[in-house]
Amino acid sequence: MIAKQKLTVSGLEIAADVFMRLDESCVLEPDCQEGQNVRRGTVLAHIRGPLRALLSGERVALNFLRHLSGIATLTRRYVKELKGTRCTLLDTRKTTPGLRTLEKAAVRAGGGTNHRMGLFDGAMIKDNHIAAAGSITAAVAAVRKRIPPTIKIEVEASSLKQVREAARAGVDIIMLDNMPPGKMKKAVQLVRGRSRCEASGNLELGNLRQAALAGVDFVSVGAITHSAPNADISMKLVNA
Amino acid sequence: MIAKQKLTVSGLEIAADVFMRLDESCVLEPDCQEGQNVRRGTVLAHIRGPLRALLSGERVALNFLRHLSGIATLTRRYVKELKGTRCTLLDTRKTTPGLRTLEKAAVRAGGGTNHRMGLFDGAMIKDNHIAAAGSITAAVAAVRKRIPPTIKIEVEASSLKQVREAARAGVDIIMLDNMPPGKMKKAVQLVRGRSRCEASGNLELGNLRQAALAGVDFVSVGAITHSAPNADISMKLVNA
Amino acid sequence: MIAKQKLTVSGLEIAADVFMRLDESCVLEPDCQEGQNVRRGTVLAHIRGPLRALLSGERVALNFLRHLSGIATLTRRYVKELKGTRCTLLDTRKTTPGLRTLEKAAVRAGGGTNHRMGLFDGAMIKDNHIAAAGSITAAVAAVRKRIPPTIKIEVEASSLKQVREAARAGVDIIMLDNMPPGKMKKAVQLVRGRSRCEASGNLELGNLRQAALAGVDFVSVGAITHSAPNADISMKLVNA
Amino acid sequence: MIAKQKLTVSGLEIAADVFMRLDESCVLEPDCQEGQNVRRGTVLAHIRGPLRALLSGERVALNFLRHLSGIATLTRRYVKELKGTRCTLLDTRKTTPGLRTLEKAAVRAGGGTNHRMGLFDGAMIKDNHIAAAGSITAAVAAVRKRIPPTIKIEVEASSLKQVREAARAGVDIIMLDNMPPGKMKKAVQLVRGRSRCEASGNLELGNLRQAALAGVDFVSVGAITHSAPNADISMKLVNA
Amino acid sequence: MIAKQKLTVSGLEIAADVFMRLDESCVLEPDCQEGQNVRRGTVLAHIRGPLRALLSGERVALNFLRHLSGIATLTRRYVKELKGTRCTLLDTRKTTPGLRTLEKAAVRAGGGTNHRMGLFDGAMIKDNHIAAAGSITAAVAAVRKRIPPTIKIEVEASSLKQVREAARAGVDIIMLDNMPPGKMKKAVQLVRGRSRCEASGNLELGNLRQAALAGVDFVSVGAITHSAPNADISMKLVNA
Amino acid sequence: MIAKQKLTVSGLEIAADVFMRLDESCVLEPDCQEGQNVRRGTVLAHIRGPLRALLSGERVALNFLRHLSGIATLTRRYVKELKGTRCTLLDTRKTTPGLRTLEKAAVRAGGGTNHRMGLFDGAMIKDNHIAAAGSITAAVAAVRKRIPPTIKIEVEASSLKQVREAARAGVDIIMLDNMPPGKMKKAVQLVRGRSRCEASGNLELGNLRQAALAGVDFVSVGAITHSAPNADISMKLVNA
Repeated sequence: MIAKQKLTVSGLEIAADVFMRLDESCVLEPDCQEGQNVRRGTVLAHIRGPLRALLSGERVALNFLRHLSGIATLTRRYVKELKGTRCTLLDTRKTTPGLRTLEKAAVRAGGGTNHRMGLFDGAMIKDNHIAAAGSITAAVAAVRKRIPPTIKIEVEASSLKQVREAARAGVDIIMLDNMPPGKMKKAVQLVRGRSRCEASGNLELGNLRQAALAGVDFVSVGAITHSAPNADISMKLVNA
Repeated sequence: MIAKQKLTVSGLEIAADVFMRLDESCVLEPDCQEGQNVRRGTVLAHIRGPLRALLSGERVALNFLRHLSGIATLTRRYVKELKGTRCTLLDTRKTTPGLRTLEKAAVRAGGGTNHRMGLFDGAMIKDNHIAAAGSITAAVAAVRKRIPPTIKIEVEASSLKQVREAARAGVDIIMLDNMPPGKMKKAVQLVRGRSRCEASGNLELGNLRQAALAGVDFVSVGAITHSAPNADISMKLVNA
Repeated sequence: MIAKQKLTVSGLEIAADVFMRLDESCVLEPDCQEGQNVRRGTVLAHIRGPLRALLSGERVALNFLRHLSGIATLTRRYVKELKGTRCTLLDTRKTTPGLRTLEKAAVRAGGGTNHRMGLFDGAMIKDNHIAAAGSITAAVAAVRKRIPPTIKIEVEASSLKQVREAARAGVDIIMLDNMPPGKMKKAVQLVRGRSRCEASGNLELGNLRQAALAGVDFVSVGAITHSAPNADISMKLVNA
Repeated sequence: MIAKQKLTVSGLEIAADVFMRLDESCVLEPDCQEGQNVRRGTVLAHIRGPLRALLSGERVALNFLRHLSGIATLTRRYVKELKGTRCTLLDTRKTTPGLRTLEKAAVRAGGGTNHRMGLFDGAMIKDNHIAAAGSITAAVAAVRKRIPPTIKIEVEASSLKQVREAARAGVDIIMLDNMPPGKMKKAVQLVRGRSRCEASGNLELGNLRQAALAGVDFVSVGAITHSAPNADISMKLVNA
Repeated sequence: MIAKQKLTVSGLEIAADVFMRLDESCVLEPDCQEGQNVRRGTVLAHIRGPLRALLSGERVALNFLRHLSGIATLTRRYVKELKGTRCTLLDTRKTTPGLRTLEKAAVRAGGGTNHRMGLFDGAMIKDNHIAAAGSITAAVAAVRKRIPPTIKIEVEASSLKQVREAARAGVDIIMLDNMPPGKMKKAVQLVRGRSRCEASGNLELGNLRQAALAGVDFVSVGAITHSAPNADISMKLVNA
Repeated sequence: MIAKQKLTVSGLEIAADVFMRLDESCVLEPDCQEGQNVRRGTVLAHIRGPLRALLSGERVALNFLRHLSGIATLTRRYVKELKGTRCTLLDTRKTTPGLRTLEKAAVRAGGGTNHRMGLFDGAMIKDNHIAAAGSITAAVAAVRKRIPPTIKIEVEASSLKQVREAARAGVDIIMLDNMPPGKMKKAVQLVRGRSRCEASGNLELGNLRQAALAGVDFVSVGAITHSAPNADISMKLVNA
């Protein structure tokens, strides 16, 4: 398997699994590691096995590897934008149905950090929960009763008033939703370290660094998983 | 379905599900609610449906209902012991393989609070992790890098020295493992509210209150899920 | 894995399976056999394998082993009560949903004998079947037409009149339902060996032997599967 | 759906199921009953539903119906051969992998009786078990310890000596394996009603009645399930 | 495993799979090949493995092997009938639910050729599609838009007029439905090689050759899969 | 559900399915059709149902809808490029693992045409097959024997010599692999309509029209499925 562009590798393990499910005697010998940056032309792995299994598995294995390396490669570009800041890049739940675990691993391969995996490993209070409960304070109190003691609470805030109320309610993380950099800066100052702050919404390569410099602890970006183009990787048959 | 002893009800929903899977026309009309305390002789629910489905489902439905109500009933007794203290009763992962979700619901029905569900919704650092990492401080630092920002960290401590190190490392919860009440009290004083404290290990109805009075935030008890005897419930056929 | 109380072992095979599913290189070397009685402190088995698999599987494997050894241990106590009689201890279908096969194996490990596994390997005629058919004789005739020639028929009887009718109908087994010892004795005499007799209902350690001495062939006890407390077993990590 | 030959119907319920799985609004209205004998040209059922579901399900539904009605039709012919005798036609486990339950229902539809369904609802001791245990008596004793009290024991016997030993061992059924009618008669006389007798092996329409007249209780025939040709049934689209 | 009649072998691979699923240490060593014609008494394969696996798998493995070899054996007889003609024997979708892939392999073993596997690898336009679309020409045009460019179109024709229209519409294959040999011959002449021709409907050993001699490219026969009697094969235990 | 950009809709049916699986009472009322082009701000559908199901399903439903509409939207742009030519846009098997059926439906929604779905509905002969068989002619002959008569054969050709040989072998489709427009034109002239021609490899919006004008029947483009960015769609809660 050969990289036909500069890329960050992710997915060799699942590619190996594809071939081994077709024929247990297939062996994938990686020539690089998960998360490694490689140049165009680099050989990523050798696969040995019966011709039939190699041909049957080729398309599926490449579809995985190209998709996941595409995510790792795009994530790497976003992470570079944050260099020198204390801000961490998070992914989101905007993933391809059925592939979340693999895509989140690809984000880690690209140097990103995973946000919660699903509804079970983090409690997120959004605008409609707040509306239903009457106030942030009431919504937080209600959620606290229903979650294990090992789970943190994050609240979505779109105004400085909401930021202030969330910080007072003692939530663990405040998500600053779609705020311009100036407003974000004020929000961070209001919180004074009582909660951690996450910037979210319409963040792109162009405006990511500005958000980080506003002082937030995290920026979360959906595009790294939902809109990464495939990395160009192909497979070539060689007689052993 | 009739209670043949004083008990706390849990499992009517899954019992209903058993009958409906056998025949979609079955209807279970509950005569009491999940978590309700009832006297001996109380009718818990009426089920209407084809005779064949009622007879086929009877044993499985009762096996669920008796097992889960047994857990709720025992949990209720432990919760009563904590009355008047600020301490919360937690369950553990010592559950029957395949039934964790239902058993954790039964704990809630009995007034208990669920600890984490599995390895994915809470990070627990145990003695062997600490040994592997070199120190509590090192282990905490390593874990922090690998978990989503929404997950808390709990550390198991068996000496006051470990308690102190854990509190300094800023962990969210410290589990006081198998400590006698006096030592537990000192541990709580050492922590000074920086982390929350959980007592665990060999807690029974006889010594539970003492642990609570030592000032811990949580007590966790495996017996409520792994050793609760069935509650006595039977099903009687009536011509409608 | 170490026994932390006196117990009868059951479940080492499924515990081994838990680890091998996580990592095929795990090996469980048993230090005792299914059904063996061991003292507190006995090492039950050594498991070798990658640390990650050992830690991931520990809780599930112990949950199985503690639950099943709990059943075997309790069964052993019931079997001892029958020592010197010709009566056999049977289990029931009052098992934990999903675990019947394993729990029935644990009963055998404890020295008990399995009753039918489900609705397919034995025909049981209960009070409501009798009511629906009009009489025991009619119910037996109806069932005989619908079952394979390899299946026996058991009839539940709660009065001596029913016992007599069942014996005349040539059923294979008569279940004496909730009868006091005196009545049970009369029932056995009425039957005169034409059918085998099984005592069932409210049998406990205290009254089991009395039932056996009344002359029945079998006693069946639900508590050995549905209300056995976990046996205390733990796992300790050792550097190999 | 129309019978294109004289046949005995079986499988309308599974045919209905095929259409309903494709589209829940499909309705199959049967014009005859499971087990009914019909003439060529008889309409077996009307199916209403979306054209797409009818066309997609046609082939699969017919494949089931033709196969199962083929079995019922052939079974009926064998049952007729036994008319006037006290002998019952049994099926075997020589069924199509995956379809045993349906094929056994088709046997019942044709007037036959089901032998055991699998290894769990009847204990069969064959020549190799006997060889392994040393004698019929030893094999029976060993099996008796391991089966539920509700299961009968059947022994395969190919000589009169074996028949005698099996009857003495008190087995429930003796299978007379591949015996000519004269030998079969002697076997039945040897047994004197202590066990029931089953003739098996190379029974066809031509020699079935002779076996029955030898006095056996059962004849078992594999061909009714494993070699029944399809019954000719087709489906015609009509505008409603 | 021994052939108890002259037969064509099919199914050794799935029989091997049955034993290996029961116990991975089982090994089936074939003594002949898929599709080989063997005499009565030929040993087909040796299986080595634990006694328990051999006994448990025997019935299922034989049920597969006998069924599939029955199909291969019958197919071989049909193929012989076509000897010397340029006509190819095709199977149909009249297969046993759940076993199509294996049965189509058995047809190949017997020297037959597979028609399409399902609705996805061939487009068949039948009378009711034609009625719905208005004409063969319209139906063909509609289908052509919806199928991949790699799929051919076959049209069912029962009159010479339909044959002419189908040939003009440029379809790939024309199925001559239930035509007598004379009409078939005229149809083939009308088509003049523009499409290939397939004879279908009521073809048996007796009239198959006549159809072939009428000049069609293919004859398709449902009976080879849906009405083949089991080939007689048994398994004998030998001490190794 | 609201379009937050100009887009082509695909995936409303699977989005509806997500909600209905969570709660059968959910109803998705589409406000536009599969394949419709809509402006920014258009309401795509209303979903009614219990709040809990709406919140639980929101993320998964949007992940499907945004991904599939992204593919339809990108496909539409490619199709526009071909306007006025007789060339058809095909997709490839470069799809996301698990989602091929849905992604191919999205291609149709965008106006594209599906190439074969998998290895079963089209026979593709690639360079390594040719190498293994010795020549295109030999490879075609070998494949022809093993495929159903309803399947077409496509051959990959990278030189004019190969194109000529493939056309002579009578293959149905010739794939012109990575050829520049001039060479493509010559290939089409060589073929003279005996086979259909498909251009493939490195086709983008910029060079697609040129390929079409070279006279090929099909252009196939992997990017429409493997590198389409998500379409921006969100869901807003409204009190009914």
